[in-house]
Amino acid sequence: MPELPTHWLRDNCPCAECRDPRSGQKLFQIADLPEDLVVSAQCEMNGNLEVLWSDGHRSRYPLGWLTEAGDGDGRTEADKRLWVAADFRRGLPEAEWEAYLADPAEQAAVLTAVRRSGFAVLRGVPAVERQVLRVAGSFGFVRVTNYGELFDVRVEPDPNNLAFTSVAITPHTDNPYRDPVPTLQLLHCLENSATGGDSGLVDGFGAAAVLREEAPADFAVLTRTPVPFVFRDHGAELRADRPLIDVDPLGRIREVRFNNRSIGTLRGSREELDAFYAAYRRFAAVTLRPELQLTFRLDPGDCLVLDNTRLLHARTAFRQDGRRHLQGCYADLDSLTSTLAVLHRRTAALDAIAELFAGEGAGEYLGEAVTMAEHMLQAAAAAEAAGAAPQLVAAALLHDVGHFQGALRGRDLMQGQDSRHGDSGADWLAQWFGPEVTEPVRLHVAAKRYLCAVEPGYRERLSEASEYTLMVQGGPMDDAQAAAFAALPGAADAVAVRRWDDQAKAAGAAAPDFEHYRTLLASLMR
Amino acid sequence: MPELPTHWLRDNCPCAECRDPRSGQKLFQIADLPEDLVVSAQCEMNGNLEVLWSDGHRSRYPLGWLTEAGDGDGRTEADKRLWVAADFRRGLPEAEWEAYLADPAEQAAVLTAVRRSGFAVLRGVPAVERQVLRVAGSFGFVRVTNYGELFDVRVEPDPNNLAFTSVAITPHTDNPYRDPVPTLQLLHCLENSATGGDSGLVDGFGAAAVLREEAPADFAVLTRTPVPFVFRDHGAELRADRPLIDVDPLGRIREVRFNNRSIGTLRGSREELDAFYAAYRRFAAVTLRPELQLTFRLDPGDCLVLDNTRLLHARTAFRQDGRRHLQGCYADLDSLTSTLAVLHRRTAALDAIAELFAGEGAGEYLGEAVTMAEHMLQAAAAAEAAGAAPQLVAAALLHDVGHFQGALRGRDLMQGQDSRHGDSGADWLAQWFGPEVTEPVRLHVAAKRYLCAVEPGYRERLSEASEYTLMVQGGPMDDAQAAAFAALPGAADAVAVRRWDDQAKAAGAAAPDFEHYRTLLASLMR
Repeated sequence: MPELPTHWLRDNCPCAECRDPRSGQKLFQIADLPEDLVVSAQCEMNGNLEVLWSDGHRSRYPLGWLTEAGDGDGRTEADKRLWVAADFRRGLPEAEWEAYLADPAEQAAVLTAVRRSGFAVLRGVPAVERQVLRVAGSFGFVRVTNYGELFDVRVEPDPNNLAFTSVAITPHTDNPYRDPVPTLQLLHCLENSATGGDSGLVDGFGAAAVLREEAPADFAVLTRTPVPFVFRDHGAELRADRPLIDVDPLGRIREVRFNNRSIGTLRGSREELDAFYAAYRRFAAVTLRPELQLTFRLDPGDCLVLDNTRLLHARTAFRQDGRRHLQGCYADLDSLTSTLAVLHRRTAALDAIAELFAGEGAGEYLGEAVTMAEHMLQAAAAAEAAGAAPQLVAAALLHDVGHFQGALRGRDLMQGQDSRHGDSGADWLAQWFGPEVTEPVRLHVAAKRYLCAVEPGYRERLSEASEYTLMVQGGPMDDAQAAAFAALPGAADAVAVRRWDDQAKAAGAAAPDFEHYRTLLASLMR
Repeated sequence: MPELPTHWLRDNCPCAECRDPRSGQKLFQIADLPEDLVVSAQCEMNGNLEVLWSDGHRSRYPLGWLTEAGDGDGRTEADKRLWVAADFRRGLPEAEWEAYLADPAEQAAVLTAVRRSGFAVLRGVPAVERQVLRVAGSFGFVRVTNYGELFDVRVEPDPNNLAFTSVAITPHTDNPYRDPVPTLQLLHCLENSATGGDSGLVDGFGAAAVLREEAPADFAVLTRTPVPFVFRDHGAELRADRPLIDVDPLGRIREVRFNNRSIGTLRGSREELDAFYAAYRRFAAVTLRPELQLTFRLDPGDCLVLDNTRLLHARTAFRQDGRRHLQGCYADLDSLTSTLAVLHRRTAALDAIAELFAGEGAGEYLGEAVTMAEHMLQAAAAAEAAGAAPQLVAAALLHDVGHFQGALRGRDLMQGQDSRHGDSGADWLAQWFGPEVTEPVRLHVAAKRYLCAVEPGYRERLSEASEYTLMVQGGPMDDAQAAAFAALPGAADAVAVRRWDDQAKAAGAAAPDFEHYRTLLASLMR
């Protein structure tokens, strides 16, 4: 073990005293650590490095963690797929709005495209005003500006001058005079019957990389010159002094601002100004190269989402022979990235549940004629057949997840000890699901004890195993217990799940597999 | 005239063909300028540099503009007043909420304090939930985050443990794991009856400057090391890799992020990590120096507004012997700065109008017994005495502003030519006022012609000068004109202003001075 950086190591102590286990936020201050802190003793044990510190604290680090390579925040060129127009010959990164809403995998693909390629197109977003705000809300928060919550880009046909050509708008980023600049832009097409008026995109990181390759001195000038971007109208007066190409402390491209229209008066020596203008003009020429211009048409219902710190967007000229109406708004990349990470967490959770069904789920179910997985899938199918609400289908599907040892380390109910598998399953599921799913799971055992108490003939219909476990679980409720149970807000749902549970022990009965329920489960995850 | 940088000069051509006169946005693309562009001829004339370009374009630059020093966007240390706690011995930058709302000068002072010192306190903001959003809305837009539109910082008294001390929170910036980070934070105190729980502020730019002075190598390490700030909870997973001290391309401090709790695992060589941790700990120690800690108590109704890219905020320990409830939200500096610029524009406009009253206003008024200023002030006083709405008081006060030559270059009505002073005054006022003020001004001449037509005896009561100008202005309306006038939406307001105008020609009559109307005018400015 090579000698490790002392304060770094201690600052990263993962113990619950040093870090909140849920949020990962540190519970001490860096200045609290003694200046003369040293490692008093260390040893490797069971795949961990155990450290005793000179102030008496003990830390345990997984050996693998010590040598992990760092990842980044995904915002520099290092984590992007730089592109030229030809890269999208076979199609744009796109998805149908309904599929995006229903399927987390589809949503994740779209958000990943925005992060990696800088844009994606959603198709079939209802061509109705203000829907663009709904799109923004699906992954983040709208950034309100002086243009309002949203803005309209609208041209009405001019019957007097059908030949009039509205000029092209060359590639640019929006709101460069804002700091912080809105990092995402959304453009939702409501109407586009004009001739022309197509949308263009240029990868600004790609263009900057071309400039660095062809004219490194010009690239350097643009990274080190703060340019005054200005905007002034009746109600606003904005200014931000930022370089055209911003690099991180390691020199990696991190942000491009490019907007001819709003560059104010730069000041400097004649040499500085000549050097800047030569570099600026060269960069502008690169952004205009045809091979970098990706051009496509937005049709009504299309919503373009683009990274405004990276992509330049443009509009081709058009004739005012029809209506063209886009609605746009701004939002931010940090929340989009967060949403994507949470989606990945959910996908990982669903994968873990699917693995339980396929693995341990194939094991026997308390001596019944079905496996655990078959039992739970049959219960879900019964709920679906009964037209149950999605949360109850999910509860039926997952009601016995507390029996899975790998996930829950419960004890074996059939050994005569109540593993409280309703509680342990509900607690585990609460990582992802709300009480509408977890509480019927928690109460499905109590529901059996309740039904035995209040419904004549119910107990007699229980399977042999279920009759055995009834006693381990406390037997039928007494009158007071039954009344208390019936008064619980979730009692009816729990009883419903219980009945599907009881029906789901038929050897060989057909039922959909776990994947059938993935979208339903995903839609219920918090 | 030394040789000027060619493309810089041309890019800054102020002509209406090159720049939208209102927004200052450029109307050409930088790549449109010929590569081989040169100045064909230039000469100085009437304080301007006149340039003929090789492509035939002509430009005219004020000589003073050519050598102006540039200003910045106000976001670096160069435009800040760095401070230590003792600088506020005589009081914090603060204002009463009501005064802030009513008086643009008071609002400008508060916003200037936030820009220069990094914070200000508003007193007497109603201690009611969600008022903090109103404060943010007074200068900008709320930035919504995963914490919602606003967040609560709340402690309830714990009757079982009055001695319990809620720990101090050391100085930090908020949301460092967001990029873009919210650049402003607001904290509104609703209740604070706990013992302790005072607020602390540290000037992070000041602390960084101290570090640069005492340990330049450490300062440099902190500016060039992107630090992973991370946050993870049920619904969010945020990460931003940013240096603790961010400098602009010229090396000036521009942003400080400091939050022990949310620094994740930095990766690097042992030497890099040791160097970073030594610098980080030294910077942390600087931020904790007592002379840098400004401590004060927020009482119910106080709202602290602070620059979250610069100031570190802290909370002293407190006993849970009472309630403490703050509501906070985030917003952004760019809009605050814009609001301040617009306020300054309004102040400049009011100053310009005041100057007209004091200067040209002292001149004779078409041969009447009062000066122009006396006439307009008397008209406003008559409107006020009649209980008129503020916009009509303003219209009465400003109705003859079209007579002022300096402002409007109108021709002299008394030379027998209609200067259309109603129109020219209204157009000039439309820079700052809406139609509720400008339209009665525009129509007050028409109102005279209308009243002459429809009101028996009105014309006979006109002053001699007014009778003379009536003829220049077109004489009494005919029936069709009068009917059309009466149908205008603003006719009644214009007639009201006209009557106060007619009353306002009494030599020596007392009337408030222009300053009396400044707040009223300011409240009507757009």
